[in-house]
Amino acid sequence: MKTSTIDLLVDLINRDSVTPEDKGCQERLADELQEVGFKPEWMPFEEVKNLWLRKGTEAPLVVFAGHTDVVPTGPIERWETPPFTATIRDGKLYGRGAADMKAGVAAFTIACREFVEENPNHKGSIALLITADEEGPSINGTVKVCDTLKARNEQLDYCIVGEPTSSQVFGDTIKNGRRGSLTGTLTVKGKQGHVAYPEKVRNPIHLSAAAMAELVATEWDRGNEYFPATTFQISNYHSGTGATNVVPGAAKIVFNFRFSTASTPEGLKEKVHAILDKHGVDYDLEWVLGGEPFLTESGPLTTIVQEAILAETGIKAELSTTGGTSDGRFIAKICPQILEFGPINASIHQVNEHVDVNDIETLKNIYKRALKALLT
Amino acid sequence: MKTSTIDLLVDLINRDSVTPEDKGCQERLADELQEVGFKPEWMPFEEVKNLWLRKGTEAPLVVFAGHTDVVPTGPIERWETPPFTATIRDGKLYGRGAADMKAGVAAFTIACREFVEENPNHKGSIALLITADEEGPSINGTVKVCDTLKARNEQLDYCIVGEPTSSQVFGDTIKNGRRGSLTGTLTVKGKQGHVAYPEKVRNPIHLSAAAMAELVATEWDRGNEYFPATTFQISNYHSGTGATNVVPGAAKIVFNFRFSTASTPEGLKEKVHAILDKHGVDYDLEWVLGGEPFLTESGPLTTIVQEAILAETGIKAELSTTGGTSDGRFIAKICPQILEFGPINASIHQVNEHVDVNDIETLKNIYKRALKALLT
Repeated sequence: MKTSTIDLLVDLINRDSVTPEDKGCQERLADELQEVGFKPEWMPFEEVKNLWLRKGTEAPLVVFAGHTDVVPTGPIERWETPPFTATIRDGKLYGRGAADMKAGVAAFTIACREFVEENPNHKGSIALLITADEEGPSINGTVKVCDTLKARNEQLDYCIVGEPTSSQVFGDTIKNGRRGSLTGTLTVKGKQGHVAYPEKVRNPIHLSAAAMAELVATEWDRGNEYFPATTFQISNYHSGTGATNVVPGAAKIVFNFRFSTASTPEGLKEKVHAILDKHGVDYDLEWVLGGEPFLTESGPLTTIVQEAILAETGIKAELSTTGGTSDGRFIAKICPQILEFGPINASIHQVNEHVDVNDIETLKNIYKRALKALLT
Repeated sequence: MKTSTIDLLVDLINRDSVTPEDKGCQERLADELQEVGFKPEWMPFEEVKNLWLRKGTEAPLVVFAGHTDVVPTGPIERWETPPFTATIRDGKLYGRGAADMKAGVAAFTIACREFVEENPNHKGSIALLITADEEGPSINGTVKVCDTLKARNEQLDYCIVGEPTSSQVFGDTIKNGRRGSLTGTLTVKGKQGHVAYPEKVRNPIHLSAAAMAELVATEWDRGNEYFPATTFQISNYHSGTGATNVVPGAAKIVFNFRFSTASTPEGLKEKVHAILDKHGVDYDLEWVLGGEPFLTESGPLTTIVQEAILAETGIKAELSTTGGTSDGRFIAKICPQILEFGPINASIHQVNEHVDVNDIETLKNIYKRALKALLT
């Protein structure tokens, strides 16, 4: 068969693979590439379907990574066309997952097929790493596939994640890293009582006020060449019984760091504890490390992808490390060069998600150019 | 009839006059004193029954003030005897309202009757000001009776409120004033967004943190001879959607001042606004003045009551202005000398509320001594 990128994308969108469902998307990809020598290896973990689809055994190994699951539709009545019926209108292809990230997945799948057909004697190897839980808890997906690959010493050399990274115009942004995420849940301990008898209470809001002021005023680092400075945001602060004459016995405060490679989780934790201790706050503090930061410095992979984008679109892509976390954080641990590049992300996770029809083939061609530069 | 103080108190407790109910308590008091020349004047406002019961037309006018309503029982299964069946056990009289404040009401009622019987030619006048909404919103009770008295130029000279003011032992504390109460509801305005894009949000918790730290560290006044320093307590702080990756759009903070006569509500408000404005906080702030402070300095009334307590109990009562608000704040506006004195308050508003049986007659005798000193 000779599927075009758009045909494959339409087929993928029409499968309502709301996380952690895959609805046959991964089998469809395997079918597409088995004809040209890729061997599928299914790596299910719990209820999550994952696919490792590799051609060749030689180094270097180039990996395209992505996910076939999508976020829920949101209010269905606000969709102008059915979210799981791919619809082309005014030059745009609409459907849940169109941008995040079935366009990327379709584009690199077809890019792989065409590249292999056009370059049957290419060097190295190519693989696809596909999961169906990127939009969910991200526990039984990419992270466990990476663990498996690492355990058997399967070496990755280059990885391109097909996430929608373009911001204003297609091609403007490559993510060459992501910040880490560290969440703290702080319980400030006090002693409840009546406001009229302040000598009998210990007001947790008061006892932590100076520490809070210092935490929000602290400069954690200044970032570096690739990362903006680490940021600290208190997302939730709850204390009080509702009664206006009762001093609460505790305050619960949740905060989150988005941190650069200029800081470490341990360093940030130490600073927070030091500030709380300095102000004599009585507290419990639980930490959850959502993801460590990763970074691919300017080098062969970023240059190759920038040149491919420039050749296909005329645009000089910027390297960026902003935004949320992605599965790239797991792959970065077993792959020295990894970046993310894909379509415009303005409509992702919203109703009427879409991708420009013109960008779909262009994206496939960019991926194919990158393969050619890396493996011929 | 010749009712003893204990008999009257038992009768009052057995009426389940949960605020704003009176259940005939006030009629019972009127019956008791009409025989000796008191004239009842009923002053109902909305659903609240109030009684102004006066004997004589001459100055000076001595007023006993109190309330016949009580707070709800709380968990009935934790009462060792039925809350509305007065029960004497181990020298204590148990029942809802025993201490707050049917003992005071019974004691000053019998004190008035005995004083008038023993001193038929006393000078001046005596009155009882009784309400049934002290434990509720306090809108249709003492405050409106005082408005009525003021409107017709009925001059009060001395007032004793029978609230339970004793702390450790009966007779140890007279309240010669109360602090004021001022509540502020602060809404700090921000802009909601994702924690990963702090440049697009305005975090209300962060933007007000320095102002909060300054507010809790501020010395509002140092009190004065009669009052402790004004206190500031944040009772409620709520901000956040629950999600750990969303910066909230607003923070709602409720705080309360208990303030002395060394400060004014206007002065406190100005200081709070100045601190918020200094830190550039974007906010709305609503104020509720729960009560203005009042004070009767050491003088004829405090001395007379202290001497009466000393004579009956051997204890030198201290003057105090601590604790919550009371209806005294309304009477203070139309009466130059007012104080509160009554039984031990340790069990009020709790299950198994009680008063020492021995203290009941002693309290009646203290009130009678005060009458004798003021009106003979």
